[in-house]
This record gives sequence, C-alpha cells and structure tokens, in this order.
Amino acid sequence: MSSEPLYARAGVNLGAATRSLELVREAVAATHDERVLAGLGAFGGVFDLSFLDAYAAPVLVVSTDGVGTKTLVAAAMNDYRSLGRDLVHHCVNDILVQGATPLLFMDYLAAAELPPERSAEVIASVAHACRETGMALLGGETAEMPGVYRPGALDLAGTAVGVCERERLVTGAAVRAGDLVYALASSGLHTNGYSLARPVLEGCYDEPFGDATLGAALLTPHRSYLTTVRALLAAVPVRGMAHVTGGGIPGNLPRILGPGLGAVVEFGTWPVPELFGLIQRRGGVSDAEMLEVFNLGAGFLLVVAPEEAAALEKAAPEPLYRIGEIVAGAGVRVVRP
Amino acid sequence: MSSEPLYARAGVNLGAATRSLELVREAVAATHDERVLAGLGAFGGVFDLSFLDAYAAPVLVVSTDGVGTKTLVAAAMNDYRSLGRDLVHHCVNDILVQGATPLLFMDYLAAAELPPERSAEVIASVAHACRETGMALLGGETAEMPGVYRPGALDLAGTAVGVCERERLVTGAAVRAGDLVYALASSGLHTNGYSLARPVLEGCYDEPFGDATLGAALLTPHRSYLTTVRALLAAVPVRGMAHVTGGGIPGNLPRILGPGLGAVVEFGTWPVPELFGLIQRRGGVSDAEMLEVFNLGAGFLLVVAPEEAAALEKAAPEPLYRIGEIVAGAGVRVVRP
Repeated sequence: MSSEPLYARAGVNLGAATRSLELVREAVAATHDERVLAGLGAFGGVFDLSFLDAYAAPVLVVSTDGVGTKTLVAAAMNDYRSLGRDLVHHCVNDILVQGATPLLFMDYLAAAELPPERSAEVIASVAHACRETGMALLGGETAEMPGVYRPGALDLAGTAVGVCERERLVTGAAVRAGDLVYALASSGLHTNGYSLARPVLEGCYDEPFGDATLGAALLTPHRSYLTTVRALLAAVPVRGMAHVTGGGIPGNLPRILGPGLGAVVEFGTWPVPELFGLIQRRGGVSDAEMLEVFNLGAGFLLVVAPEEAAALEKAAPEPLYRIGEIVAGAGVRVVRP
Repeated sequence: MSSEPLYARAGVNLGAATRSLELVREAVAATHDERVLAGLGAFGGVFDLSFLDAYAAPVLVVSTDGVGTKTLVAAAMNDYRSLGRDLVHHCVNDILVQGATPLLFMDYLAAAELPPERSAEVIASVAHACRETGMALLGGETAEMPGVYRPGALDLAGTAVGVCERERLVTGAAVRAGDLVYALASSGLHTNGYSLARPVLEGCYDEPFGDATLGAALLTPHRSYLTTVRALLAAVPVRGMAHVTGGGIPGNLPRILGPGLGAVVEFGTWPVPELFGLIQRRGGVSDAEMLEVFNLGAGFLLVVAPEEAAALEKAAPEPLYRIGEIVAGAGVRVVRP
C-alpha cells in the first residue's frame, strides 16, 4: 500500500495548487493598482469603485467566454504562452462592443491534472494580457478534475468586467437602414472554429507557413481592438459594433440589429488571410460554412451613418474596410462580386 | 459522404446552442430587474449601477468558482437539477465572506457535447438559484468542446459579483488572539471532496441512506449562508468569516488570519453528518485527510470577540456551534476531546 494520501491518489493535488499560486503571485500583483483591496488568496477579490464618482450614471458591462479547443492546438505545440491573450482579448472585445472600459478580470482554468508549472504558465499569460489591457486580474479558480477532462487537455475561460457611462453605451438601437458596415482585420482564427480547423490540419502543424509554421499560425493570439475602437469612438458617433466570434458575420452582426433590419455584406471588400483558404481547400468546406464558423479576416465590425463615413475613415489608426450596408429585412446576406 | 456540414460532424452544433438559449430565456429573464439593461444574447451583459448613489464608498467583491467533479455524480444519477444551486451558492458564500451583497452572476458550462435539453436544464437551475438569491443571471457561455471533455462529463463554473460598503468589508484584519470561532452547519459535501468520495462510493448510489439514497445524499445542494449571515452581521461586529471549501477548516480558516495568528478547533463541538463517517470508513481515510478535504459538517465560520459571543448566539436564526478559538501561532490545530 502506498502511504500517499487518498486524495492525491484520486488525482487532486492540493499542494500543486498552492505551489502554482506562488509561481504566479508576482505576475498577478503586477496587474493591481490601488483599487484592488484584496486579490489572490482572498475568498473574493475586492475592487474599489470610488473612481465611479467621476461618472454621471455608470453601468457595468460583463462578459464570460472561453478559448474553446484552441487549447488542444496549444497542447499539441506544447506552447501555452499565448492562451492568456486569447482569453483576455476575446472577453475584452466582447465588452468593447458596448463601449465599455475594462476594469477587472477573473479566470477559470481546469484540466484532469495541472502540474504547477503548466498552470503557472497559463495564469501568468492571463496576467500579462490583463496588464497590457490595463485590467486587474482580481481572482480566479484552478481546478483539477480527473474524470471530467481528457488527459492532456485543458479548458480556459474567464470573465471581464468593465464600466461605461450609461449614455455612451453602444447598443445598436440607433442603427438604421442605409448605415454602413466597416470591418477591422482579425489576427487569424482568434478563438473560433478550431473544432473544424484541427481535424483538417492535425499532423501538419510543422509545415512551413508564412514566416513560421502552420501550428504557429493557428496559435496566433486573438487580437484586442481596444486601442483602435477607443480612438474611433472618440472621433465618431458609432451606432453599433459586433465582435465576429462563433457564428461568423452572419451569426454576430444580427445580434445588434433591431427588428426589420438586416445587412448585405460584399465578399472581397476585405482581405481574407491565406490560412482560411488553406483550411477551406484541405477540408473541402463550403463557402457558406466558412462564413458561419470563421471570422475570415474581419474580426470586429462597426456600423455608422453614411455621413460619418469620411470622419470614421480619417480617424482610423489602422486599415478599416467598408464591407457592406444595413438594409431593411432580416439576417445577413453575403454577396460575391 | 454525409451532407451534414463539416462543423457539425466535428462535434459542434451551433443550432443546439441557439435552441438551448430559447429554452432558458424565460428562466433567465425572471432573474432580471430594471437594473439589467442587456442580458442574454448581448455581447456583454449590462447592469445599471445608479443604485450605488446610496453607498458612501462602494467596492465590488467578485469570486469565480466551479462545482468540481460533483457533475460526475449528477451524470451518474442523470439528475442535473441541483447543480445550479451548488454553483451559485458556492460563489455567493465566497463573496459573503467579505460581507458582500450579491448583484449578478455569469455562468460557464462546457462539455464534449451538450444536447439543448441538457444545457437548458443546467442553465435553468443556475437561473433559479440566482432568482432565489436575488441576483441577476446577466450572461454566460455554453461551449461544446469535443477533444477536451470526456464523453458524458460536463463542467460548470461561474462568477458572482457583489457590492459592499467599503467600511463594512469583513476582512479578518480585526481578528485577535482570544477571539472565538463559530460554525454554521453545512448541508453535506457541498462542492468539495468529490474526487475522493466518488471512487469510494461509486456503484453504491442506489443504496438506501437516510430518507433516500446515497446518490441523493451526495447530490444535496451546497447551501447558501446569505440569510443567516446577513442577520448575524446586522446584529454583531463580526471580525472574520471563512467559507469551508477545498482544504477544509485547516485550509480555509488561515486565509483570514494575519501573521502570528492561528486557531485551535475542538473536534466534537459540532455534529458531523453520517455521510462523512461512511466515506471515511469505506475509504479507509485518515482523520487528517478527512479534515483537509471535507467541511465535515462545518461549512461556514465566523470569528467574533469573546464579548460578542452572547449577542451572536442570541441573533442566530439557526444552530451555531462554538468550535474553537484564535490563538497566537500559525495554522489550525484540531484537537480531539
């Protein structure tokens, strides 16, 4: 008989969790400013709201999301360094859609087993992304769940909490037929479509692709639109925004359109990165399915009145593509020139 | 060749997610009051903070947690109805430790595959628990991740956001040697120790136990301490509180003790439910390990100055057990009479 405690034999290592916490303490603390009154180790993270005195009518904007099966590509490449950006940027872009400024983040990491070095690598990557975003990593949970997760696989999810002045919320309610739809470029697949892309490209991660490998291209982190969108919001009254995640443009643009409104999007008005073409060819995927699963290079959409077009284009600190128009109707019709 | 789209074949069913959303719309909406400006379907949930005008110096208190491998017992019993209470109460108790009033909740549900009825059952149970707690279920994420989760297993995590007046935060900083430690009863294992309990009791879920079965006893939902603790906080200056989760009393009570402080807890001063004894006997688990894994019947701890003892006991709307004392030193020593 082993003298190891039964709980460790059952696959849960309480000491590992403590050790992992020690490894990330510094990275997490680096995300804290004087507003964080309690963080790592506390039952609840505590965040001072007294800065809200400067707001006339503040609202919280909150989003929970995960990085999906991109974690399996990270596992195959044994490279978890960019998962934090994937997670944090995904959530931050989601609250940015409504115009929110990110305040704090909570992460959730789980796997069958988590060696302290592995969980520390992932949590530190989350902390670094929070720091880049100016957001406190206020807390989180790391769970070892043998029997729930497959060996070697992990899941990473999180919750971003932001704040917005109520009257500056971007809800889509102001969107009208005739408004223009603009797109900002994505950095790759972001965090969507990996359950389709992986079976197609599995075993090919070492193939050269661009300046590196196919695996590296798949791991390119989900970009943040925070800086660019802030600049655009400061310059122009934006009527609606959409983050192009699972469901693609047809699944996400309608989320901000009122009844009786649809959109026509013209394919070819923005550059589609070669990675998507490669997945489509090798997988024999239809155009329609590509559109409903991937962002296809258009990762974030903005809707403005036609008379704001020139000002929006002028204010853009990066390429901005005019990809379509809001119309009477319902749903998104994608046309090919 | 099947004509089914590739993405559905790869195991992700976008239609199922939409259908599941429809099934829970009503249950989620029932958790909303006029403060919820955007909920289900929005990129971020929006929660109006204008009620904070009534606070002198509000702070947010936030906690993320999961229900652990209790989901595997639910799967074995094919009964997911109480997982929502497990999740919501776990998180709410965590922020209650610092004295917070719960405001809103975000859930995260993931599995290899999630039939709409299954995810609707789980999310509706989360919504019901939120409603009972007076908390808005503001949003969440449901993810199908084939390749990450084992078939039939699911994970359920969430984030509770609460608010507290800064000067009413209960931090443990006021705890002194000589203070008394009180316990409120747990309702069972709560959401901890299932990775130990399951292998011990697997295959015995149908055995009669108490008024029902062993499986039903294991599924007893994690109770909420909100009402009782609110009554105690209103009556007595409580110096510190601890939620007894993974790590048991020895792992959780020290989280609120400053340097130079420890505790002596006397075993036998509170009733240990028979379920723990059964797990210990059948699993041949040591006393020490039982204490470090399970709450053993003491699910929530309160620390008060000795001169407040009488007032605390008088204010308690349910049985309250005086289980120990704060001492100079470090860590928790559990003594047996």
